[in-house]
Amino acid sequence: MTNLLEQQFDHIMMHRALKLARRGLMTTRPNPAVGCVITGGEEVIAEGWHHQAGEAHAEAHALRLAGTKAKGATAYVTLEPCSHIGRTPPCADALIEAGIARVVVAMRDPNPRVSGNGIKRLEEAGIRVDVGTLQSAAESLNPGFISRMTRQRPWLTLKMATSLDGKTSLADGRSQWITSAESRSDVQTYRAQADAILTGAATVLADNPKLTVRVNQWPASRPLPEPLKQPVRIIIDSQHRVNDDARVFESPAPVWLVRTTPGKETRHPHCHELIIEADRDGKVCLKALMIELAKREINQVWTECGASLAGAIIEQQLCDRMMIYSSGQILGHHGRSVIDMSEPLELASAPRFKVIDRRQVGPDQRLVAVPQTQD
Amino acid sequence: MTNLLEQQFDHIMMHRALKLARRGLMTTRPNPAVGCVITGGEEVIAEGWHHQAGEAHAEAHALRLAGTKAKGATAYVTLEPCSHIGRTPPCADALIEAGIARVVVAMRDPNPRVSGNGIKRLEEAGIRVDVGTLQSAAESLNPGFISRMTRQRPWLTLKMATSLDGKTSLADGRSQWITSAESRSDVQTYRAQADAILTGAATVLADNPKLTVRVNQWPASRPLPEPLKQPVRIIIDSQHRVNDDARVFESPAPVWLVRTTPGKETRHPHCHELIIEADRDGKVCLKALMIELAKREINQVWTECGASLAGAIIEQQLCDRMMIYSSGQILGHHGRSVIDMSEPLELASAPRFKVIDRRQVGPDQRLVAVPQTQD
Repeated sequence: MTNLLEQQFDHIMMHRALKLARRGLMTTRPNPAVGCVITGGEEVIAEGWHHQAGEAHAEAHALRLAGTKAKGATAYVTLEPCSHIGRTPPCADALIEAGIARVVVAMRDPNPRVSGNGIKRLEEAGIRVDVGTLQSAAESLNPGFISRMTRQRPWLTLKMATSLDGKTSLADGRSQWITSAESRSDVQTYRAQADAILTGAATVLADNPKLTVRVNQWPASRPLPEPLKQPVRIIIDSQHRVNDDARVFESPAPVWLVRTTPGKETRHPHCHELIIEADRDGKVCLKALMIELAKREINQVWTECGASLAGAIIEQQLCDRMMIYSSGQILGHHGRSVIDMSEPLELASAPRFKVIDRRQVGPDQRLVAVPQTQD
Repeated sequence: MTNLLEQQFDHIMMHRALKLARRGLMTTRPNPAVGCVITGGEEVIAEGWHHQAGEAHAEAHALRLAGTKAKGATAYVTLEPCSHIGRTPPCADALIEAGIARVVVAMRDPNPRVSGNGIKRLEEAGIRVDVGTLQSAAESLNPGFISRMTRQRPWLTLKMATSLDGKTSLADGRSQWITSAESRSDVQTYRAQADAILTGAATVLADNPKLTVRVNQWPASRPLPEPLKQPVRIIIDSQHRVNDDARVFESPAPVWLVRTTPGKETRHPHCHELIIEADRDGKVCLKALMIELAKREINQVWTECGASLAGAIIEQQLCDRMMIYSSGQILGHHGRSVIDMSEPLELASAPRFKVIDRRQVGPDQRLVAVPQTQD
């Protein structure tokens, strides 16, 4: 093949590997989603993707299917093959042993301690390695894993539901439901991609939510993740206000109560306390919490909370993505605002986001915004 | 031609006539924008559109160009030809005299007093008339004219500019500029389509705007209307707070001060007072104002006002379209809300709008919403 044809072929195969990786998006955590395609000449010999942490990696699946055909073949992997022995043997070694002649890698391992080691191991075994094919697509697949590895904190999404004029409820807090069944259904798919759902004690007391992925609200058009892993529910409860009878305890998935001082013991075995240092206001220090969550292998945090916690997250620059579902209702100035925070000194110093996606979800609008980086 | 082919041909020709009509959108007021195409067989013989009130109608333009070729031809008109002598002779008569054999009409005249008369006149002269081709497209061309004729009030758009969290300014009112130069530029094209720009005295006192179509902000990609007719500026000033030195008086276009009682005489010859009955709160009755504006041949009102007037317009169901430009800033709960109104008793009774268009304008989002009709 000429260089140009080879490049085109590489793109098509890596695109296929990314599509395979996507199948694991809701099940691989805390591992990243990874896909692998093995080709001989212009033919696809085998495919694989990582299903669940503790099980075989994408490369191992594909190599097993390829068998002896792997000899002299090319492997496309969406993430640098591992070189260390974790819960499974190193994939770099498996590729070498199978006689793979060329490995195309979309992105390096984001973990600075091992980044490049897998590639080095392959090259030392005489394998040709090409790095960077569809790199940004591969990066956008695992923002949480990359964030944890490079920033030592999870990748956090702030979900909000507002009226057309930016209100979340009437003055007395009535808010069920501002947005539609379709929006609530859409939310389930994002909850399922998150390692944890974060909220505040105020929301637990006011709405008493379960904060689980609701199977009965799962969109009919999308397959249910298999297995369905419920995210950890994390509740910031500086004032020890969450009671044992809250509905969040009804699901057997873990609940982490985040406090600055230990509280009385709970009768729920799946409930754990996280003691985090207090900030200057005596509240849980959010930055310290994020570091602790990363240590506990939380990649993605999906936040559904009240206006105060949302405001604190924005002010402390911990929001990596905003998803705003808005209905067509007008509630007026008496309604509650969606973000409580200290007023910016001037317009120019207000936190600024950039809308990267807008669409209709049922009768509602959905905006996705990310922090605006200074140009 | 078979029926199906004739229908297809009719659609294509009417589409062309609508496109011609659109050229007059910013100049024909208080008349509707109208286009006309004359065909002989499958050939376009002549085209015309209405430029300005007082000048020739679309049909007259096209007939003049067609000359003797009009004999036996088909005329496509986006609005029922007039049958009464207004500022120009009736078009129905002109079509008959020219020997037109068939007239295709997109929509009837919305004026209930004359609706159908033009069609009747044509049919009595033995002309085949087909009504309803691309009717809804024709209707959406002249919402203001139709509203004035059928509802005896103008078609009102409420323009708003907000932060991402629905705020219009900081607590002290600082708001220049929340949205971008591109959004302000987009606004010029809508001001130019309006017969009048409506605001309140509070906005005049706070921002001292000129409220004219700003040529230097006109989008480079669009031709400037020729001639550029500045809309009437209408200021609701129940408390006689607008002073003679307001910048709104700098432009020679008319200014109408709307009050419930006469004020002292102004030194500006282009400023007129509109005395409108008071509502129960002693303020200008908005419904009475709308009736008066329709009597004064105002088709479309473009409203740029503060949160209180916007709230009153929404509560009194006078808003036919909302255009919301929103930036990426977050201002928080201290900022001013975009709509001031009495709180709905419950969520279900809140005014409800339906978003019919969403797009990016420069760095901002623009939503267009219309009142949600009960299904």
